[in-house]
Amino acid sequence: MKAGKAELICTGSELLEGKLNLYPPLFHARLAPLGFLLAREQSCGDKLADIADAIKAALSRADLVLVCGGLGPTFDDLTRQAAAKALGLRLVRSKACAQILSINYKLEKLPPNMADQAILVEGAKALENANGTAFGEVLVKGRKLLALLPGPRGEWEPMFESFLAAEISAFFRRAPLTQIKLRLAGLGEPQAEALLRPARRRFPGLSHTILAGAGIVDFIITGDNSRGAVTRAGAACRRLAGEKFYGEGDLTLAAAAGEKLKARGRIVAGAESCTGGLVSKLITDVPGSSAWFLGGVTAYSNSAKVRFLGVKASTLKKNGAVSQECAGEMAAGTRKAFRSDYAFSVTGIAGPDGGTPEKPAGLVYFGLAGPRKLATFRRQFRGGRETVRARAAAFILDELRKIIK
Amino acid sequence: MKAGKAELICTGSELLEGKLNLYPPLFHARLAPLGFLLAREQSCGDKLADIADAIKAALSRADLVLVCGGLGPTFDDLTRQAAAKALGLRLVRSKACAQILSINYKLEKLPPNMADQAILVEGAKALENANGTAFGEVLVKGRKLLALLPGPRGEWEPMFESFLAAEISAFFRRAPLTQIKLRLAGLGEPQAEALLRPARRRFPGLSHTILAGAGIVDFIITGDNSRGAVTRAGAACRRLAGEKFYGEGDLTLAAAAGEKLKARGRIVAGAESCTGGLVSKLITDVPGSSAWFLGGVTAYSNSAKVRFLGVKASTLKKNGAVSQECAGEMAAGTRKAFRSDYAFSVTGIAGPDGGTPEKPAGLVYFGLAGPRKLATFRRQFRGGRETVRARAAAFILDELRKIIK
Repeated sequence: MKAGKAELICTGSELLEGKLNLYPPLFHARLAPLGFLLAREQSCGDKLADIADAIKAALSRADLVLVCGGLGPTFDDLTRQAAAKALGLRLVRSKACAQILSINYKLEKLPPNMADQAILVEGAKALENANGTAFGEVLVKGRKLLALLPGPRGEWEPMFESFLAAEISAFFRRAPLTQIKLRLAGLGEPQAEALLRPARRRFPGLSHTILAGAGIVDFIITGDNSRGAVTRAGAACRRLAGEKFYGEGDLTLAAAAGEKLKARGRIVAGAESCTGGLVSKLITDVPGSSAWFLGGVTAYSNSAKVRFLGVKASTLKKNGAVSQECAGEMAAGTRKAFRSDYAFSVTGIAGPDGGTPEKPAGLVYFGLAGPRKLATFRRQFRGGRETVRARAAAFILDELRKIIK
Repeated sequence: MKAGKAELICTGSELLEGKLNLYPPLFHARLAPLGFLLAREQSCGDKLADIADAIKAALSRADLVLVCGGLGPTFDDLTRQAAAKALGLRLVRSKACAQILSINYKLEKLPPNMADQAILVEGAKALENANGTAFGEVLVKGRKLLALLPGPRGEWEPMFESFLAAEISAFFRRAPLTQIKLRLAGLGEPQAEALLRPARRRFPGLSHTILAGAGIVDFIITGDNSRGAVTRAGAACRRLAGEKFYGEGDLTLAAAAGEKLKARGRIVAGAESCTGGLVSKLITDVPGSSAWFLGGVTAYSNSAKVRFLGVKASTLKKNGAVSQECAGEMAAGTRKAFRSDYAFSVTGIAGPDGGTPEKPAGLVYFGLAGPRKLATFRRQFRGGRETVRARAAAFILDELRKIIK
């Protein structure tokens, strides 16, 4: 079965003046289980004519149109008016909605601003908002559906989950699309593409997307799984990826390492120089990481490397802080200082300055100390400071994950 | 003078299937100096009819239309064909472009894939690509301009800078828009809006945008500065913001603190519990931060707090790790251990688990030790784990910036 066609309209001048629009991926993830894929996204400023025109055009193409934003009480909130204009309908005041606001906000009489929040497009079904004053609205136009949602994520997300998903599902009754996201580490986008090409060819009826992040690559398979095609394609890709595959969904590299450590009752600590706390930050992004992470030292200066981690002054003098020897001593010293089972270390030149012909920016050494052995690694990363740091962090988390048996 | 009206079309199914679109803010920043603001952005999949329809609609509304993506050599690159269809023009093979490819890639005879890269829309001016095989194209339609750009950032950005900016400037001859970005810390979006409202009212001819980040708020003023209005509005806002204003442009809180430390020859170190390395990461995001940052300890476990930072076991027993006493001892102990001028500490409950009625998730204590005194702070943050951590990090960096006299 083919996917249903949805369009998303995001309103707000800020989206055109410097603010990133984080919403399309979030809507994509919510629409696939309802059998819909996004066919287009439009970002409009806060102008009535623009929003109305965007709604009209989207309804002429798609079965399901979602408008996000512009339902607030201020002068630049114009989505209601725009939707009424696009559909040739009036705006009406809903007594039921006014009553709900009175109850929710414990107000006998609503102030004018809030009272206007009870204005709906004629014939709309209101969706209650547990986190704000703006009601969502669902409008039927022939065999199509138009939904208006408040702009803040904290308002539209719960509203979508609690009410809108059921409305869409009941109206269209589409078979859900199944989506699998496989996460791979230790390779780039072109290698991932080459690696997974055979699976892509074997399952041409499915949608295959490759997304590259910092040091990881996501492979997303979307389609009708009623005959198990998505499941089989996922299994084929996992086989092709081998050890590069580390998890599914939104599992981070740090969480994957953490799961293995936790299962084995082991703990880790770390020492960072050029990543300056980034690896530690990524580890502690994982809720409950205190069960398997003791802490770390950001040893940005040489004196901190000597004082806290027991790196020998002679090593720093002879080989420098960016060296295999220093990385090894940092990892071994951290394991000892924290009394942990495993310890990692990162030392390198993040750039843009500080490089030399022998040790250019992007050169990073790593250490990994375990109960049985001490391993060191050397990598030369490309890109700016942020990219080098992100790739270095992903690299050592991936090596940590792989070393835990 | 009013801003010119531009529209952006981004092609690529991945933008509708989970990939964030990072481009609109980048184009916004490049268009303002040419006198244009984005009036709409559309993301389309790789379908000829969709892209053609998007181009046609955009050209009916805006003076300048930019299409980014879909100029590559593979089957799903359809922007050329779509532009030709939208304008009712043919595609033609350019001998000059083929020659440029032959020279650039040192190929006597171009393989078919690459030879097709020399196909342009009839009448288009080709823009050379120093980083790939796809030419950009500029098409004049009456008093409007349509530009086609390759999708990868590493290709379109240099092409825009080197060629397209000059084409747009010569064709439209618009006065540049000046943009000022003021960065405020220690307040939320609504407070920033209320604080800056008087300036907004005094300069109604300018565009004012407020963007909230983690613990900081940007206030962006855009407009014609030929009579100094943008400069004056910026000065008025800085006055209204007072100590909340910490810098302009892309200056981070960590960089602002670093500038003050560097100017005074002072150095800092830090201890983090619930932020788990995030503050240290934000500091070392700043190139050259090794001049004023010695390092830090992520003391995630109690034992690490005692061993590395000299926190008393009795303090942990009596008050717990999340307490004013512990935060104070962590900061003082860090200053001593690192022998730094200043030291900060963060200890709290990031959530979602680990909270109690007395110490709920989001409760964070901070310490700040300086040459003369030791200060502690208590804050209760709202939001999920990521938000709590980000706000806590911004809070302590802002306090550090303010304490350095």
